[in-house]
Formats: sequence, structure tokens, C-alpha cells
Amino acid sequence: MSDPQALAEAVAKAMYSRDTAVIALGMTVTKMAPGFAQVRMRVRNDMLNGHAICHGGMVFTLADTAFAYACNAQGKVTVAAGASVEFLLASREGDELTAEAREVMRSKRNGVYDVGVHNQRGELVALFRGRSHQLNEDVLESPSP
Amino acid sequence: MSDPQALAEAVAKAMYSRDTAVIALGMTVTKMAPGFAQVRMRVRNDMLNGHAICHGGMVFTLADTAFAYACNAQGKVTVAAGASVEFLLASREGDELTAEAREVMRSKRNGVYDVGVHNQRGELVALFRGRSHQLNEDVLESPSP
Amino acid sequence: MSDPQALAEAVAKAMYSRDTAVIALGMTVTKMAPGFAQVRMRVRNDMLNGHAICHGGMVFTLADTAFAYACNAQGKVTVAAGASVEFLLASREGDELTAEAREVMRSKRNGVYDVGVHNQRGELVALFRGRSHQLNEDVLESPSP
Amino acid sequence: MSDPQALAEAVAKAMYSRDTAVIALGMTVTKMAPGFAQVRMRVRNDMLNGHAICHGGMVFTLADTAFAYACNAQGKVTVAAGASVEFLLASREGDELTAEAREVMRSKRNGVYDVGVHNQRGELVALFRGRSHQLNEDVLESPSP
Repeated sequence: MSDPQALAEAVAKAMYSRDTAVIALGMTVTKMAPGFAQVRMRVRNDMLNGHAICHGGMVFTLADTAFAYACNAQGKVTVAAGASVEFLLASREGDELTAEAREVMRSKRNGVYDVGVHNQRGELVALFRGRSHQLNEDVLESPSP
Repeated sequence: MSDPQALAEAVAKAMYSRDTAVIALGMTVTKMAPGFAQVRMRVRNDMLNGHAICHGGMVFTLADTAFAYACNAQGKVTVAAGASVEFLLASREGDELTAEAREVMRSKRNGVYDVGVHNQRGELVALFRGRSHQLNEDVLESPSP
Repeated sequence: MSDPQALAEAVAKAMYSRDTAVIALGMTVTKMAPGFAQVRMRVRNDMLNGHAICHGGMVFTLADTAFAYACNAQGKVTVAAGASVEFLLASREGDELTAEAREVMRSKRNGVYDVGVHNQRGELVALFRGRSHQLNEDVLESPSP
Repeated sequence: MSDPQALAEAVAKAMYSRDTAVIALGMTVTKMAPGFAQVRMRVRNDMLNGHAICHGGMVFTLADTAFAYACNAQGKVTVAAGASVEFLLASREGDELTAEAREVMRSKRNGVYDVGVHNQRGELVALFRGRSHQLNEDVLESPSP
């Protein structure tokens, strides 16, 4: 596929169809472009922690998902090598969170992606930086589950 | 409560009872001590990502949960300020993951906790380092949801 | 001082005058603005490590310096709480490195700043993210050494 | 060289002889073992920042140096891919800092090392976690400068 935008969209569609965690958490991939992804999640009652705020792991998972879609957009299977996150603001049940991931750097095999997570009031909830590692397989040729 | 071990166990019990995310993901808190927590999770089919391996966000959430229990063990409500994670080995459906969190440093308000996540073969799956921030509230006096 | 740009420049001048490490390493603060700083350093022979490339610590120090100037630009003494760095490309003796730090987020007391370090060919050498903590003192009222 | 301890010591000697940054900063490698290094530095007047405390970059450089010696101890040229640091306590002129680096994980090519930096009063000054990447070259066969 020679059109980068069409490739990015086809990758998102293929990944999402087998992405059971992302579907179980009610996330939707709302924008997709070369080196970019936007993913949304509504904070449900079953995403709260022992202090009655959204579990940091759920916020991380949202950011990590946007990162995953952005770094696979070029068509090669790419996995997370690591990440760091800053939790800036607590989220509560019913909040609508939007994560946007952007490629900062990509070399032959490694990449760095920055993700910001905002809530429905436009407040910055979390900052995430992910490091990716590209494998040799094509996303669109991966076996179905 | 003057016995640190009894306090840690009471904190774990109180937190777990309202920890809807942790319960929904099937995690169990298997050990609790001052500055220490062990948490277990079985990788379910609804925890996989688009590459058919366990979503990194689920591994992070397990580690973050062990961190949360360890840093609240002293009884004051303590939240995560941030964290970093290294993903070392992919996990698959059915794997049994165990996260152990240990206090590395704690000052008046801030702490650093290290978490290792191993699978059922004793292989190191992920390394996590969390930074905590302590609030003035007591865990055992937090209102029920 | 009510003009943010004039304040940022006055802060830079005051900090630099007592910044012995930065002077010893031959760094120069080449641009200063609210929430922004640009700092330059030439890789000298006494900045190399045991593999004959620029010591990662020197690259970090350059980025950390740009971060420090950017986060103090608002006039309150602000210190680094922590940072992460990705080393992307080796630098060699004679390379001219430029670090640019930008404020990503700033709340009452805490901030996050991103720094990119490029060499004289415009290649990205390192990515840095710093977390700042603001104290109550004014930079311009700090005692001289 | 088949004795790991003798190899680690030979590596340290070879690296230090060409490690101009480390020599310029007055650091000494005080212990060396497989997967371990201890490095010391006295905070000099030319290591202070604009707030008259030790520049965080100098503390990072000390920790990064201990990391470098620990991850090269096995004899293959190994470079830093990235690191994170938490600054816990300010250091002042005359303080004697000791960094100890320990291997946490090492696979074929990649490793994770933890470093703690203490002052002469035994207080924890900084925590550092480094990620290493191993090249194919031998440290002991590297060309002299």
C-alpha cells in the first residue's frame, strides 16, 4: 500500500479487530494518520481504584494504546520497549479522556512517541513518552487470532 | 493502629473493597507488609492487544497496583505522581503474572517504589519504578464509595 | 518586573553569573523567553568517555541546563525533581550541540519540560523530559555566592 | 580472559585510561565486579549551578559513569540507550558522593542497571535507572585514542 494515510487506516482497522483489551475497555480509535493516533475512553465504574479515582493503569493503558496505533501506522509490527508517564490530574467516573500520540523520532528500528491525555474540559490529565521497537513482520500480514 | 503489619493488612482490605478496576481485572493482593505488596493477575483473553500478546497497559496496571498497595501500606492516602516501565518479555493468554513492589525511598511526602513483574516460569516480564505523593487523609477513614 | 521577557532575561543573567558548572563546561545561554531556553555547548576533548564519544552525562548536563533556565524563567527558584533521557546518536569531539527546552505543563508548584538536543548537522542527539519543583524564593533576590 | 572479576578490573582500567570526562571531573572507580561498579566524586566549586547547589547534571554524570563501568564489566562495548533519574537531596560544595551501580537484568543485547548515589552522611541523594545496549566490539580491543 503506497498511500501512507490509507496504510495507517488499514493498520488501525486490522489491529482493532483483534485488540481484545482495547475493545473490553471501550476505547475507540478516533483519528489515524502516519505517526499519529487519537484514542478515546470513557472512565467507567469498573476503572476506579481504591481511592475512587480512575486507576492510573487505565490512563496509562489509554495512552499506551494511542502510542501503539501511532507507531504501527507505518505498517511494520512495532512493540513498546518502555514508557514513562506523569499523572497530572485525577479523573473520575464519567470523564471522557482523549489521548493523542505523535511520533517524535523514528530511526530504522527504534522510535520515540509523545502522548498527551486530556479530559472533556481540555485539562491535561497525563503525559506519556513511549519507546518503540520495530519487528520485521507486516501488520497487515499478521495471522488472525 | 500501632502495629505496622496489621495496619498494612487493614489498608489492603479497605482499598481492595472499593478497587473496582483491580477486581474487574481479576487481580489478587497475595502479600502485604510495610512498604511491600505482592499482586497477581492471570492474563485473560480480554487483555490482549492487536499483536495477540498481553497489552502493555495491563502489565503496567498490575505493577501500578502493587505499587499503590505498597505505598499506601503506612496508612496515609498516597497517589502515583508518575512511573516508568521497561517491557522485557511478552506475555500470552493464560500466563500467571506476579508483581512485587518494594519501597526504595520515602521522605515526608514523596516516595520511590520499584516493582518487578515475573511470569509463572520466573522470567522477568517488566520492571517498573513509581513515584508516590502522600496526601493528608487516612486510608482507613476514607469514605466508602 | 512585569514584562515576562525582560524577567526571563534578567533571571538568565543572574543565574549564569553564579553557574560555575555551566561556565566550566563552556555552555552559553543563547536564547531565553518565558518557558523557553536555548543553550549551546561544544564537545571538548575533556568531555569524552571511555569509548571516545561524548559522555552521556555531558549531553544530559546540557539538556538539564536548558531545562533549568526554562523553568526558572518565571522568576521563582525552581529545581529539578527528576528527568528521563533517551540517547539517540553519539557525539564526538568538536560537535556543536544545541539544547532547546520548552514548558509542556506548569501548575502551581510542578512543571514538565521537554528538551531536544541537536548537533550542528541538525540531527537529533538526545531527548530529555524534566520535572520541576518550584520553591518560594525569588531568583533575583537569591544571595550572591 | 575467563575470570569475570579479572575481566571486570581490566575493563575498568582500559576504560578509565581514555575516559577524559571522568578524569576531568575527578571521579575515581573504587570498586569493580561483574555487573557492579562503585564510583566516587567530590563536589567541587566548578560543579555548582545558579542556585549554589551541585548541578543535577554532575550528579547524573556520576551515576551514569557507575552505570557505564558496570555494564561494560562483561567485556563487550556497551553504551547507554537512556536513563531516568530522581533527584532526592541537594548536594553542596565539598560533599563526597558515592554511586553504586548494579545489574538488574541483562539479555543478549539489552540491560537495565540501577544506581544509587549517597553522600558522606549516608543519605540517598539520587536514584538512577539506566538502559544499556551492547555492541559487538570488545572493550579490551578498542583502539587507544
